Amino acid sequence: MTAEIGPNRYGKSAIRLVRVDRAGPAHRVRDLTVAIALEGDFAASYVDGDNSLVVATDTMKNTAYALAAEHLTGSIEAYATELGRHFLREEQVTTATVTVSELAWRPIGSAPDAFSRDHSSARTCVVAVSRDRVDVDAGIADLVVMKTSKSAFSGFPRDEFTTLAETEDRLLATKVSAVWRYVEGAAVDYDASFEAVSGTMLDVFAEHHSVSVQASIWIIGKAIVERHPEVAEVTMTLPNLHHWTADIERFGIPNDRQIYVSTTEPHGLIQATVRRS
Amino acid sequence: MTAEIGPNRYGKSAIRLVRVDRAGPAHRVRDLTVAIALEGDFAASYVDGDNSLVVATDTMKNTAYALAAEHLTGSIEAYATELGRHFLREEQVTTATVTVSELAWRPIGSAPDAFSRDHSSARTCVVAVSRDRVDVDAGIADLVVMKTSKSAFSGFPRDEFTTLAETEDRLLATKVSAVWRYVEGAAVDYDASFEAVSGTMLDVFAEHHSVSVQASIWIIGKAIVERHPEVAEVTMTLPNLHHWTADIERFGIPNDRQIYVSTTEPHGLIQATVRRS
Amino acid sequence: MTAEIGPNRYGKSAIRLVRVDRAGPAHRVRDLTVAIALEGDFAASYVDGDNSLVVATDTMKNTAYALAAEHLTGSIEAYATELGRHFLREEQVTTATVTVSELAWRPIGSAPDAFSRDHSSARTCVVAVSRDRVDVDAGIADLVVMKTSKSAFSGFPRDEFTTLAETEDRLLATKVSAVWRYVEGAAVDYDASFEAVSGTMLDVFAEHHSVSVQASIWIIGKAIVERHPEVAEVTMTLPNLHHWTADIERFGIPNDRQIYVSTTEPHGLIQATVRRS
Amino acid sequence: MTAEIGPNRYGKSAIRLVRVDRAGPAHRVRDLTVAIALEGDFAASYVDGDNSLVVATDTMKNTAYALAAEHLTGSIEAYATELGRHFLREEQVTTATVTVSELAWRPIGSAPDAFSRDHSSARTCVVAVSRDRVDVDAGIADLVVMKTSKSAFSGFPRDEFTTLAETEDRLLATKVSAVWRYVEGAAVDYDASFEAVSGTMLDVFAEHHSVSVQASIWIIGKAIVERHPEVAEVTMTLPNLHHWTADIERFGIPNDRQIYVSTTEPHGLIQATVRRS
Repeated sequence: MTAEIGPNRYGKSAIRLVRVDRAGPAHRVRDLTVAIALEGDFAASYVDGDNSLVVATDTMKNTAYALAAEHLTGSIEAYATELGRHFLREEQVTTATVTVSELAWRPIGSAPDAFSRDHSSARTCVVAVSRDRVDVDAGIADLVVMKTSKSAFSGFPRDEFTTLAETEDRLLATKVSAVWRYVEGAAVDYDASFEAVSGTMLDVFAEHHSVSVQASIWIIGKAIVERHPEVAEVTMTLPNLHHWTADIERFGIPNDRQIYVSTTEPHGLIQATVRRS
Repeated sequence: MTAEIGPNRYGKSAIRLVRVDRAGPAHRVRDLTVAIALEGDFAASYVDGDNSLVVATDTMKNTAYALAAEHLTGSIEAYATELGRHFLREEQVTTATVTVSELAWRPIGSAPDAFSRDHSSARTCVVAVSRDRVDVDAGIADLVVMKTSKSAFSGFPRDEFTTLAETEDRLLATKVSAVWRYVEGAAVDYDASFEAVSGTMLDVFAEHHSVSVQASIWIIGKAIVERHPEVAEVTMTLPNLHHWTADIERFGIPNDRQIYVSTTEPHGLIQATVRRS
Repeated sequence: MTAEIGPNRYGKSAIRLVRVDRAGPAHRVRDLTVAIALEGDFAASYVDGDNSLVVATDTMKNTAYALAAEHLTGSIEAYATELGRHFLREEQVTTATVTVSELAWRPIGSAPDAFSRDHSSARTCVVAVSRDRVDVDAGIADLVVMKTSKSAFSGFPRDEFTTLAETEDRLLATKVSAVWRYVEGAAVDYDASFEAVSGTMLDVFAEHHSVSVQASIWIIGKAIVERHPEVAEVTMTLPNLHHWTADIERFGIPNDRQIYVSTTEPHGLIQATVRRS
Repeated sequence: MTAEIGPNRYGKSAIRLVRVDRAGPAHRVRDLTVAIALEGDFAASYVDGDNSLVVATDTMKNTAYALAAEHLTGSIEAYATELGRHFLREEQVTTATVTVSELAWRPIGSAPDAFSRDHSSARTCVVAVSRDRVDVDAGIADLVVMKTSKSAFSGFPRDEFTTLAETEDRLLATKVSAVWRYVEGAAVDYDASFEAVSGTMLDVFAEHHSVSVQASIWIIGKAIVERHPEVAEVTMTLPNLHHWTADIERFGIPNDRQIYVSTTEPHGLIQATVRRS
């Protein structure tokens, strides 16, 4: 009986990098958290304890800062691609995956050099660079949204453990985590596409009538795929952050969808991919 | 040798409450986290195990929801005051302190019934209601701001453990936690005053030249007290979220205040009160 | 151009459940966080907004509590299996995946009815129940361990961005997340096996000489596979929680591997599977 | 109208320090998080932007590491006292407050050089060093405990918003945060006293019959003050982490204090000081 090494990857995570562009009349702040992971011919580092091909994760960190000077001038996808490509110069690396999360900083008033951080959502990307292809996933995370009407949930099966009432008018809240994959090889303006896809997501979220979180994912995802030809598929992971009507009517106080108890646990969790067919 | 009960308070925390106002053409979402704490003649509940005067914290929670229907129509300060007053009807209560933190929800586009949460800062208040006075503290929390120029730190003493270089041009970042106390008994438009004081804080943060976090607190605090007569004092607690220039010049790459390592620990922490004299 | 629904799953997460067994002379506390996810014929719920086959996640939550009375009498794997099987009675469900994390509560002294929670690690399982098979993954999470000797890292490649010094004696610290899959269909005493595998993991971690985190994963994983025939493979995800020697020698104070700066970000991250070959 | 500077303090927080003692046959790991705050004649640093008396917080950090080599050989209280005293050599400093939180690392088996971290609670101290006195607070934080019997809550007042049922047998769970102040100037063996006071706390928690969290604080606090003459007072802050009996009887499943829903929000919060009289 013996053992072998299976799938493996290694790298550096939580590299915190801020870039300040000072060239224009107003500064611009970029705020990134970067992770780098390498896959390839690393079995010897496990089985034989041979480090001769193991790029140190400390070196990866240094490289992230070093390459930011020249290459973090546009989209995070472009920077991630350059960073991933850099590690492919090592023969033992077959895929370098670079994950980036960016927080936006907004100017304070008209000041050119003062900013406040918009922590309401993060823009993300995962770029997997191999010798023969580059896969680019873009996304948005931690975006908390709510519909105060046009949301229902009814018609579901009832069994001996079902107590939930059917409702044609519930409050729907979720923290959006969405990742969309760009068509491989497509020429994409990543910044423009991020704005456009995010815009579609928010617009359709606001406009549509939801009969379930599942149906909402479909309606939003379908719109994204249909309106944005550069998107091959989109995966949404949506917790259902339940808001229960506060039971104050037992105190003789009317509560027509006005006062809610908001909760974080337990929560529903719905995940699905909508793809071009 | 014997023991006695000293200062004590009790109540309910982390009451999560959402109110949706549906009257106008567009809905409005209020998102509050509420804590209630009572002080008064409660020694018997400790020393004698006598619960006859102990308003249950579960009752406090119910009351927060019940009173929200009628009283959460304006500022959180007004709601907190009403909630605090409610508990004073119990003779044993001398002070009811209500703490509220509110997150803003912004309409998505022009939709009347879809919102995204602005998690970039929280508006807070602490209202202490006694029989003879009401003390109102308002505040802002979790507001992360940065100055990319006009920030220095030099002229500090050097001893055998000092290694920090003096700098006339550093990146200054902090997460603002500010609390200001309104003049007792003043007629204050809490919503208007919150906007005005927050505006002063941001404006002065952006405009001033900082020679230290301490000096920034003074300059901002002085402006608040001088421009807003309803404010008796303001206390700011500012971590210094250090951003170190990434040492990429050792790789031959210039770095003129462009690429930074952002950090969270350790961090400086400066707290001071500026008050009307 | 049109769209289709791809991979999807839905369910309830963060179900917090405590069970107190009061039958014996001393009580026993079980503290579980449960998640349930269903996969199957749910496309209509997305594409057509048809909820007729959508077991409500609220029903899942109720079921978790209801079945805990009869079935949470032994291992979390047994409970998860029963819970998963329950949902297979619905024809549209092809796989029910139940994830459980359990925290241990230790008796305080010899008291039969007082406990303190051991938050030092969590025991986990992921049980995927299908009609033709049950896959059981067991694991341990959040276990923070350290080696103060017998850890090195040298012989790695150096390039223009490499600054890390080679070391034959570093402090190695990591937060273990390990998941092992039991051989499908094997008769396993899950509680006994968890103790045995965890024991092997800790013993080998303590005893072995580490030349890298990669080599440690191999040595520990190989021992697990070799000593525990019921384990088909084990996947370890190990952050490298760097501890840097504090540079106090510049102050004339010797520091022979004594005083360290412990850090959380950035951190290395090494993940690999060791499997029976 | 003018402004003045009020109470103020500044310093460095979240200094992460690990010390490994390698002298004995087995190593010993100390894992500290340290904060330093100075008060004194610092008004000029605010009002005049004069940094000439402002010890840099970076220097404070360096000093924490530098002094750990010589002074972190016994209790955290002794180290904190030395660290605080160091800053009093600066004339402008009137009080240096050093806060320490220590996590324990337990040997793995009989290994002399491998450890796992016990994250179940933290030992804390706050030492305020002035020229004429040293105030030492010791404490324990994040200790989660539960009583599965001998806990009741009844006899509380009922008003129009009261819905909580009286109970003679509830599950009581809390996360203990306790701080006790040593009699000023007393010769205390801090390590021994910490063990003794913690032991009393746990013993009495386990043994006593609780009619409320308030009564529990009194009974535990009184025992601490009575049994440990070096303790002048103890302050306990106890959230009431509610565990609600899961309503599965509606499904025909008996539930005699067996299956509970554990919750984190909202929670009761009771804080009181018991002092020597």
